[in-house]
Parts: sequence; structure tokens; C-alpha cells
Amino acid sequence: MLVECVPNFSEGRDPRRIAALASAIASVRGSRVLHCTSDRDHNRTVITFSGEAESVLESAVRAAARAAELIDLNNHSGVHPRLGALDVLPFVPLGATTLADCAALAHRAGQRIWQELHIPVYFYQAAALQPERTQLEQVRKGQFEGLRERVLTDQGKRPDVGGPALHPSAGAVCVGARGILIAYNINLATTDLAVAKSIARAIRASNGGFPGVKALGVPLASRRQVQVSMNLTDFNVTPPHVVFAEVSRLAAAAGVAVAESELIGLIPAKALEMAFAHHLNLPNFGAESVIENCLANRF
Amino acid sequence: MLVECVPNFSEGRDPRRIAALASAIASVRGSRVLHCTSDRDHNRTVITFSGEAESVLESAVRAAARAAELIDLNNHSGVHPRLGALDVLPFVPLGATTLADCAALAHRAGQRIWQELHIPVYFYQAAALQPERTQLEQVRKGQFEGLRERVLTDQGKRPDVGGPALHPSAGAVCVGARGILIAYNINLATTDLAVAKSIARAIRASNGGFPGVKALGVPLASRRQVQVSMNLTDFNVTPPHVVFAEVSRLAAAAGVAVAESELIGLIPAKALEMAFAHHLNLPNFGAESVIENCLANRF
Repeated sequence: MLVECVPNFSEGRDPRRIAALASAIASVRGSRVLHCTSDRDHNRTVITFSGEAESVLESAVRAAARAAELIDLNNHSGVHPRLGALDVLPFVPLGATTLADCAALAHRAGQRIWQELHIPVYFYQAAALQPERTQLEQVRKGQFEGLRERVLTDQGKRPDVGGPALHPSAGAVCVGARGILIAYNINLATTDLAVAKSIARAIRASNGGFPGVKALGVPLASRRQVQVSMNLTDFNVTPPHVVFAEVSRLAAAAGVAVAESELIGLIPAKALEMAFAHHLNLPNFGAESVIENCLANRF
Repeated sequence: MLVECVPNFSEGRDPRRIAALASAIASVRGSRVLHCTSDRDHNRTVITFSGEAESVLESAVRAAARAAELIDLNNHSGVHPRLGALDVLPFVPLGATTLADCAALAHRAGQRIWQELHIPVYFYQAAALQPERTQLEQVRKGQFEGLRERVLTDQGKRPDVGGPALHPSAGAVCVGARGILIAYNINLATTDLAVAKSIARAIRASNGGFPGVKALGVPLASRRQVQVSMNLTDFNVTPPHVVFAEVSRLAAAAGVAVAESELIGLIPAKALEMAFAHHLNLPNFGAESVIENCLANRF
């Protein structure tokens, strides 16, 4: 049962701490770190790893433990919303694994994180136990500073496992199960945050934009730019190249250039195939035209 | 020793004959047909298959035999230059296989095609035995109708194996060894062949255009279009998206729209990665950001 796991940690600046987090994951036989992206302005690191379910579960718990040792949210600042030292912990099915398998794994991880580390847990997306916790942004609303007060008075905000108080330095972990998600950012050559916020509003699904697009406008102080920071939760419907074209158009209309774009973590090959067919006007193009796909499927 | 082989046959219209050619290849244990593209106007079929060297060699000889049974060049017309029923037979290294391995395999295939089928053979590209036969277009100059006269009087035109007379209906086979090549065509929404020919001249390496680009302008009578038909022999230097942009620009300057483009056979994933990085302004993007690559390399 092959599973991908994409923990997001609230640390994106200290290379030694980041290496320690990756080491905790890789310390389990059968877990392989596939990718690691850190961002100074987000002050956040996204690690992608995979393996058999039991290995992935053990790595996830070790990562939560190491993050709690290394990260104190009372001293953390960054432009990305966060609730925990290990902030989100999504399990993603690979191969024949199902989303239900991953939801079950998420629930086991959540129980262990509370029992072994005394960090409370919220379950989101396909692992959600309450319908209003399906959307991660709803769970994380108020962030660490807001929610640690709120949980004490508002029954509806209590963690799914443990608590009700958040961990004093590690907060809470949002543990989820989901399909492939593309974390994709477009950086604009301006320091005018209003431009990024306005574009984010125009394109996100919750404001009537593209289906499956979540978007925030955030400042990138270290680069003197602003960013449209996005999650594409259904790239088959709204792939990155469609978003890039629209953000470029809206930025140009605001008199702002696109500086560059960036992926956080990994992207499925199909998103590249869709873009290639579009940009080169190749109506009959698909995965079956790529050598590596043919060799991998058939040999 | 894994090898790809991409025979081009002078038959692109009769589905039963095309199926028979693919069957001849697939009749060898260990040879897998990966892709098959046929074109009515070119009257040509390109089959991509792969396997261990010995299986691929056997399939190649069986394909040459079946093509000679099914195809009579005296009754063949098409817009693509051709010299044989099985016109070209390139061997391409995969995995740890080298170009030298493929040249040796090409030489063995050529010997067998003459000895067993009495069809003479020219060796080209990395399998060439004469420096002026490195370029396929030089070998094929004059095509079947011209070369069958010329070989009788011009020593310099004689086949590398067999002959000197060409086979009366199957012509000769050009057997080669080469790296990955992308066969890529761009169809223009006009019947004015001069536009396609002029664009082909402007972009091909031999006229000072893009390195590694061979290009012809040909009519597509069945589609009422013209085509810039290309081989990209070094896609790392000149990838398809660069050619598409320039052909689109030249076509627009001539007042002609690009109708669509098409790949003949397979394309390496890296060409998609290069295009994606370019079109989405992703400076840090590479193969290591694609999930499937990470999983294939590491597990």
C-alpha cells in the first residue's frame, strides 16, 4: 500500500533544523524523502516523502516529534497561515491505494500524535470527522495565536483528538487525506500587496474564480516582490498553465510584470502533458506519446 | 541491453497492411510495440518498439520481410521522401545501452536483411560506413525512382551491403543508429505550399536556422493544409516549443494561421519539462519536481 505524505513545517530559514526534520523522516526503513522546499518569507518547509503505509505512518509521527522539539510557534513568524510546528500532515494515495486507506492512516497518525506527543489534532479534507472541517482554511482560521484562546471557550473549535488546550509551543497538527494537490506560486515584480490580493480574490474558487483554486496574496519581503500563493486541488479541471495565463493577464492589466513562478513540492506529469498540448496546439497529444510512460507501463 | 527501434514503412493508408507490419514486430517474444503513427498524405507509418537487443533485431528483420511482401514502391506515392518499402530502420539506445551498441546492432540487421531477403542496405548516421552517408537525406537523395538507375552507373551510390541493383519492389533499407529524435510537424491553415517551404528553409540547420532542425514543406492534400515537417535531432538544443514559437511567428508574418501541430512517434519527457519551465516562467523547474520521476528513480 504505497502512500505519499507531504508534511508542512513552520520552519523555513534554519538549514540545520530543516535537515533534522528530513532526517527524522528518512530514519524509518522504507520511507524515502522525494523532495524538500523551504521558503524564507513563508518561514515554512514542505517535504514530500513516500513508502509503504506503515513506514510512512512511523515517519510522520517521528517528524511531528522532531518538529515539536525544534520549533516554538511563540517565536515564529511567516506570511503563510499556520497552526502547528508540524502544521499540516496530508496522506495521499499512490498506485492502488485509496483515499479511504489514507483517511484511515490519517486517523491512526492523529491518535499517535496525541497519545505519544500530547499535541492535539484536527482532521481535515477526506479525513475530516466534522463536515465544517473539510476545508483546511476553515480549520486553521485564527491560526496558533487566535485558536489557542478560542478552543478554551468555543466547543465547536475543539480538536478532534486531545486538547482542548493546544500544545503551548507546538500548537496542533492538521492531519488529512487528499488527492494530488499542486502548490504553485506566481511572484509579481512589485511590492504592492494590493495587486497580489486582488488577483488572488479574482482567481480563487471561493470568490467565483477557477474551480479547485485556493489563493492568497502575500508579501515576499526578502525578494521585494509580492506573491499569489495557490493550492490547485483539482489540476485536471484547473491546471497550472491556465492559472498562469490568467494571473499574467490580470497582472499586465494592473501594469505589473510576472517575475517568475515556483512549485512547492512535486507536480504530476499529467499537468505537464496538458500544458504541452495546449501551448504547442497538439490536439492528439497525451501520456501515451511520452517515451518514459510507454516504457514504464509496458516493461 | 535495452534498445528502441523506429522503423518507417512506405504505407500509411491501408489499416490491414499497417496492422500486419505491427504484428510482424510483436510476433517476437520480448519486443513490445509502444506506438504507431500513420499518415495518409505522407503514405507512411512510423512504429516505435523496444526490447532487448536480440528481440529487437529479430523483429526488425521480420518487419523488413513483411514490408517487402506487402509494399510495392512502383505503386507508392506520398509527400515524404522514401527509398524502401521499409524505408528507414534506426536503432536507439535506452538505459545503459550505447550508440556503439546500436551501430553494431544496425550492422547485424543490415547483413541479415541482405542475406535473408535480398534487399540491399545503406547505413546512416552513427552506423554510417562512409562519412557522406551520415546524413539520411544525402543517402535517400533521388529516392527509389532516381537511385535505382543511379546505382547501376555510379559506384559512389552503391549500397553498403548487397546490390548494386535495388530490390525491384522493396528498394533498399536505410539502417541507422542514432540518439533520440523528435519527429514534429506543424500544419498551416493554407494550401499555399510556398509558405511552408519558405518557413522550412528559414528554420532548418542546413540553411543557417536552428541547430539540429531538419525541415521540409509538404502539401497535405487530404486536409487542405500545408505542413512544415521536421526532425529535431538535438532537442536539448532546439526543443519543439522553440520551433513552434518561431514557425507561428513566421506564419503570422505571412498572414497564415497555425492549424495544429503533431508528433510522429514518441517524445522524451524532458522536452515537456523544458517547455513547462519556459511557458510558466519556472526557472527552478526540472525533472526532480515531477512525482513520477521521483517515484521511478527511487523505488
